[in-house]
Amino acid sequence: MLEVKTPAEVLAMIPKEFRPLGETETVSYTEAAGRVLAEDIIAEEYVPDFDRSTVDGYACRAADTFGCSDAIPAILELKGEVLMGQDADFSLPRDACAYVPTGGAIPRGADCAVMIEYTEDYGDGTVGILKPGAPGMNLIFRGDDVYPGKPILKAGRVLTSQDVGALAAVGKTAVSVSRRVKVGILSTGDELVPPDETPGPGRVRDVNTPLLTAMLRDFGAEPVGYGIVADDEALLRVKLRQAAGECDAVILSGGSSVGVKDAACRIIEEMGELLLHGIAVKPGKPAILGKAGAKPLIGLPGHPVAACFVTQLFVLPLLGRLMGRTQEDLTVTAELTESVGANHGREQITACRLRREGGRLLAAPIRSKAGLITQLAGADGYFLIKRDCEGLPKGAQIQVYPY
Amino acid sequence: MLEVKTPAEVLAMIPKEFRPLGETETVSYTEAAGRVLAEDIIAEEYVPDFDRSTVDGYACRAADTFGCSDAIPAILELKGEVLMGQDADFSLPRDACAYVPTGGAIPRGADCAVMIEYTEDYGDGTVGILKPGAPGMNLIFRGDDVYPGKPILKAGRVLTSQDVGALAAVGKTAVSVSRRVKVGILSTGDELVPPDETPGPGRVRDVNTPLLTAMLRDFGAEPVGYGIVADDEALLRVKLRQAAGECDAVILSGGSSVGVKDAACRIIEEMGELLLHGIAVKPGKPAILGKAGAKPLIGLPGHPVAACFVTQLFVLPLLGRLMGRTQEDLTVTAELTESVGANHGREQITACRLRREGGRLLAAPIRSKAGLITQLAGADGYFLIKRDCEGLPKGAQIQVYPY
Repeated sequence: MLEVKTPAEVLAMIPKEFRPLGETETVSYTEAAGRVLAEDIIAEEYVPDFDRSTVDGYACRAADTFGCSDAIPAILELKGEVLMGQDADFSLPRDACAYVPTGGAIPRGADCAVMIEYTEDYGDGTVGILKPGAPGMNLIFRGDDVYPGKPILKAGRVLTSQDVGALAAVGKTAVSVSRRVKVGILSTGDELVPPDETPGPGRVRDVNTPLLTAMLRDFGAEPVGYGIVADDEALLRVKLRQAAGECDAVILSGGSSVGVKDAACRIIEEMGELLLHGIAVKPGKPAILGKAGAKPLIGLPGHPVAACFVTQLFVLPLLGRLMGRTQEDLTVTAELTESVGANHGREQITACRLRREGGRLLAAPIRSKAGLITQLAGADGYFLIKRDCEGLPKGAQIQVYPY
Repeated sequence: MLEVKTPAEVLAMIPKEFRPLGETETVSYTEAAGRVLAEDIIAEEYVPDFDRSTVDGYACRAADTFGCSDAIPAILELKGEVLMGQDADFSLPRDACAYVPTGGAIPRGADCAVMIEYTEDYGDGTVGILKPGAPGMNLIFRGDDVYPGKPILKAGRVLTSQDVGALAAVGKTAVSVSRRVKVGILSTGDELVPPDETPGPGRVRDVNTPLLTAMLRDFGAEPVGYGIVADDEALLRVKLRQAAGECDAVILSGGSSVGVKDAACRIIEEMGELLLHGIAVKPGKPAILGKAGAKPLIGLPGHPVAACFVTQLFVLPLLGRLMGRTQEDLTVTAELTESVGANHGREQITACRLRREGGRLLAAPIRSKAGLITQLAGADGYFLIKRDCEGLPKGAQIQVYPY
């Protein structure tokens, strides 16, 4: 019999037992947000590819303006105007300037740009500079931002909208991302009916299939539904084998009765190896984890709140591992609005609502006996209480994992 | 001439100047994650609809077990077994019990369930109870979680995966959500080329179209691209009017030269009203905001980093207002890894990278002169420094808006 493991032990087990699938696909940068980058992005060109002005004004040699002022302007010959999007295809002699728009190219010989506010166009082919420039002032030099060989983004990162902008800037319009991990979802239980049916006596709706489907989709995985399976070992075996054959991982939820749990363990052992039987966390203890070859087979508690917590706690990190994701999720620091007890030798997970009051972020723990709906609906995240902690006082600073 | 406004003034202006579109559509609960809920969800039934056991064990009357122990078990007559998903269609007489699985229905007359670990089946039609029950122990009563009329979710909330689970549980399989706000995106500038082209002399790639498209899509809006528009007032007028006719809002970015900015202002004034000309924030000052009828017309700075900041700062809240979104974005508390100066009479926005070290979340500000790529690629969020603040010291606790 396997021992019950702590959440930290389970998380430590994941990189040892499972490896990235290593399968990639090429997508357009416009479709890359939310995907796991599968290559290091290294710039291949200069951005900008020319020296640019950051202001509307006059490009000139700083040395020609030293010592000038409102009272004694430096008088420079106006040698022309650089148009936006055009090359500045001329050289500036000494004591000369050229008009440049913000973002415009700088003619050769110029080493600064003076803002138009500090200049005066006399209309006779000369411009007065009222404030001295300094070399480099108001300029971006070629390659200041990006040069060939500069690392832009690292493999393993989940691409943000801002990263998409950066890809556009360096002209990387096709990127290699990890294939979405395909995850089979089975709900077991004789009591379950699909959510669009009205449950008869003794029955309840299957919450886990839509809940897990939404969570996996949001994470960038590809959920595949295998429907509701009755509490029947032979049937479960057929469905689990089918799902494992067609997907990269399988999540089985439910089987809250002892018989079904044992059946799931037996089937996983037949198919490969049982790695974990129970996590020392409340709620969520009955979680199981095994593998068939390289494929994780996961058993979640039937109670949707427990299934949700365990999914966030170790299923998503495990799927992230398969997709080569290196990024951790962020937590939010918040202040507990009331004390929360915990005294049962297991880590405790509690859902909470978040609200801002003045400058403070407050976390109101959600208490309920039955907890199904109230712990899910309107919850903004959850927090953990360590197993050796007997509870947290009102006002405690906690780390909330936001949904 | 309109005054430059502070970010707080701009945010305060939004609810006054713009109203929710009030247009909704009905979607399946399975497609509802990330959408703005447009109705209050009120339960119409009981969940669960029957009294359930939370353990595998024996349902009985607590009073029949009072005073029992390992040494002196309470002997109860075994009246049957409730099967999972079946009605418990019988009454329990005194001194009797029935086997119930976790989640199974409780027969009438029973008021508690004793865990199987604390019982002994003698095999002769009687069961010994080794630990006394208490009324309500290990039971969830009908409607404990949800009852008709109980509020489940409030209109204005952005639905999470967990909310989808809650919708499934109460059988709300079709929900009313706000229509995605349709936003036209135009990039102006003679220097711009599409990202899949190699920029010639004096030219750069259009970063803002893909950046804004990704940001709006991630926010749940529907971006519509109108391409790159040359710095030409007549052309800009035609394109802006077309986009305003076809969309709920228009974002024009670029026009960094003074002439184009003035042209955008003139066109907005022709089409309706100019509300704002400049935000006291660095970078991002040249932002403009107007409206044509109820439709916002937004002018963003051409520099992608500034465009990105201004979008997060006030464009997304504005689009959220149009969709009836009531939720605020969360910030993350982090510790600055180095001091950041700010001394220019405007609020300052700085991008940062986040990393966890020990128990602390560290924010490393991203410094760069040119800043385009380096401020976007690999950034994890941004933070604000107030206008009256001369900078933040190393170690300061800051609020980061995560990407």
